[in-house]
Amino acid sequence: MTQDLTISEVRLTPVLVADPPLLNTQGVHQPYTPRLIVEVVTADGITGVGETYGDTKYLDLAAPLADALPGCRVSDVNGLHRLADLVCGDSPEATGADAVDVGGLRGVQTADKLRLSVVSGFEVACLDALGKALGLPVHALLGGKVRDAVDYSAYLFYRWAEHPGGAGESDDWGAAVDPAGIVAQARRFSREYGFASFKLKGGVFEPDEEIAAVRALAEAFPGQPLRLDPNGAWSVETSLRVAEELGDVLEYMEDPASGTERMVQVAAGTEVPLATNMCVTTFAEIPEAFARGAVQVVLCDHHYWGGLRNTRELAAICRTFGVGLSMHSNTHLGISLAAMTHVAAVVPNLDYACDSHYPWQTEDVITERLDFKDGCLAVSDLPGLGVELDRRRLAFLHRRWLDDDGTMRDRDDAAAMRVAEPGRTSPPVPRW
Amino acid sequence: MTQDLTISEVRLTPVLVADPPLLNTQGVHQPYTPRLIVEVVTADGITGVGETYGDTKYLDLAAPLADALPGCRVSDVNGLHRLADLVCGDSPEATGADAVDVGGLRGVQTADKLRLSVVSGFEVACLDALGKALGLPVHALLGGKVRDAVDYSAYLFYRWAEHPGGAGESDDWGAAVDPAGIVAQARRFSREYGFASFKLKGGVFEPDEEIAAVRALAEAFPGQPLRLDPNGAWSVETSLRVAEELGDVLEYMEDPASGTERMVQVAAGTEVPLATNMCVTTFAEIPEAFARGAVQVVLCDHHYWGGLRNTRELAAICRTFGVGLSMHSNTHLGISLAAMTHVAAVVPNLDYACDSHYPWQTEDVITERLDFKDGCLAVSDLPGLGVELDRRRLAFLHRRWLDDDGTMRDRDDAAAMRVAEPGRTSPPVPRW
Repeated sequence: MTQDLTISEVRLTPVLVADPPLLNTQGVHQPYTPRLIVEVVTADGITGVGETYGDTKYLDLAAPLADALPGCRVSDVNGLHRLADLVCGDSPEATGADAVDVGGLRGVQTADKLRLSVVSGFEVACLDALGKALGLPVHALLGGKVRDAVDYSAYLFYRWAEHPGGAGESDDWGAAVDPAGIVAQARRFSREYGFASFKLKGGVFEPDEEIAAVRALAEAFPGQPLRLDPNGAWSVETSLRVAEELGDVLEYMEDPASGTERMVQVAAGTEVPLATNMCVTTFAEIPEAFARGAVQVVLCDHHYWGGLRNTRELAAICRTFGVGLSMHSNTHLGISLAAMTHVAAVVPNLDYACDSHYPWQTEDVITERLDFKDGCLAVSDLPGLGVELDRRRLAFLHRRWLDDDGTMRDRDDAAAMRVAEPGRTSPPVPRW
Repeated sequence: MTQDLTISEVRLTPVLVADPPLLNTQGVHQPYTPRLIVEVVTADGITGVGETYGDTKYLDLAAPLADALPGCRVSDVNGLHRLADLVCGDSPEATGADAVDVGGLRGVQTADKLRLSVVSGFEVACLDALGKALGLPVHALLGGKVRDAVDYSAYLFYRWAEHPGGAGESDDWGAAVDPAGIVAQARRFSREYGFASFKLKGGVFEPDEEIAAVRALAEAFPGQPLRLDPNGAWSVETSLRVAEELGDVLEYMEDPASGTERMVQVAAGTEVPLATNMCVTTFAEIPEAFARGAVQVVLCDHHYWGGLRNTRELAAICRTFGVGLSMHSNTHLGISLAAMTHVAAVVPNLDYACDSHYPWQTEDVITERLDFKDGCLAVSDLPGLGVELDRRRLAFLHRRWLDDDGTMRDRDDAAAMRVAEPGRTSPPVPRW
């Protein structure tokens, strides 16, 4: 065994992928959303792939990291973090203590979070290459799977049938702007993918409207776990009212209110567990939130937390402190879904079905799309992540990014909403 | 790459190794101490080695685990833990909620802790085999070293020149039962190994006597970090008095008082950081101790915490909660020292020099003893742990275990003390 695990080349390929007109409290998804595909190539010619956010501010950090990485080894994940601290340390984003706007749906943003999201794409690429070099699946590099399949949840969205002006790609899902539309969407998710639990992205309509939608889901799918996530759009009072009205059917309520202080107040007033991907999205936010009981479930996301190994450590912290664990998802492709599945497979205390946007992403950069069966993904035992890059598709989606005039290269759901509703201003926090 | 990582055989070899007459608050080390050497052999004939406690109660748990392990893969560390939960679950030790006496110096004992200590020996053996199979050092399996050498501290003991009646092996260290003896011992440690920080095992003599010893060390080694560890022998009042008297020279005070309640009270009354390998020795003990500020430094020990990966997770928790991290050591051989060094090499927040009993263990089961230079051990980049079993020595030390009439097979420092002082009873807690 004398393999050369040294990285000889790193390739960064930004792409634009089709995104349906999904609604959230910030606005609406744009017709295309940016992702960054990371490839690391070892001296032996083995290529590992990773994926992360593709907005300009992420690309600006990824470029110097890609330049600095050759000469390091794909096995040196700790070194990758140290290198990122070093080369991303004097970027404009990293020098301020915080105040980097990375989209409005991730809670308080800091340069640290931005850097960790970038590192996650490189870490996954390194682990994929390492696994391929060693003949081991990524889950084995993380200590070995404790389950053969990972449960996923249907991710329901209020949505329009088409983007304003018919922009972008179209699909056959149609609109969903009321309880009946949401139930119809859920039925299709159930039929096509076998999902048995359902999360509704809320914060779009008046709370009573969304309560009615969850009630309709509870009637259509009696006894099946339901979740509602308004992305912090509600006041403490509204949050408590929703919890009161839906407490009997909600598995958890996700980020009802914005900020630790409001979450603490909501948690104190209800038995419904509060989940978060906004209040606690980095290690530094854990001590206060846990001590004050602000959250009962952390939605891990290997992009936010800086990779698969950090996600394992987050899981250990949750286990130690008796806090539940589930998995968040933002718009992503099959590479990230594979990575999510590997880490979900090794975490003993993954207490809930994971979220995934994946069914909404009809475009991908891998040769064979991952296939949900009975709401689950089988954990791959192939070397690495178990996915293969489709270079033709990658080139096509990269060409779209190259050809874009700049309007789609940075995700901005509020801007997309202004295309439909000129003059619309940002909603206040709390909105209701 | 089609290696077969399946475990085909597990060998357990209990040994008795010479231990000098080191004193602590429980009594004195026996002439020989039991250790268990674990070997796992893969289908490809690769052997990995690990080491853990060798007392009967550990052997009783190790035996069924060794029987159950063939067929599993050395890469499946998560599976090893699940298997241990399963096969060690109905042992007499594991069925009670707690109340297993594993030696008196480890704090409150539970079946959980006992099982984790056993698993640690198997986990290290699996990682050693995995590293050899893949051509990677153990540190690379843990994410890669962040330092090339690991700092160790001198571990000073009050001791007699010989065991009662001249039993066991002899050495040329002589007695150390007063400040001058401790300083002489420290000078030799400094000269022979280059250690720059010093820990004194206390709780042996009246606190004033031990204060005088630490003062003498401070004069002999001005500005160098000093630690004092009475293994919980003191009252809150005594602990605070010692902290007051030695606050200007102590890097930290280790387990001055016994139990979380007393540690909280001590911590509230002094600026001297409190370290522990008694108050917090398992994940379940972390939340209360951290919330109440009982400890400022956790002394990790991969035996206690269930292996190298769990130790990494403990480090992540300490990092997240702003608690310091150092490393504990009990009597151990070179295999465990190598394992300690690998995990110490990958933990970014290892804030203090590690403890090690190793210089006191003149007997070993590896072909080349690890060599401290300037108080450090170089981190091995050889595949696996980087140590090789000396089968002749292993057989010799195992023969000693076989020939023992049972008196040495379970470490009992109090019993050893009764050999010297017949009729001596266990000291009260707190003792002073």
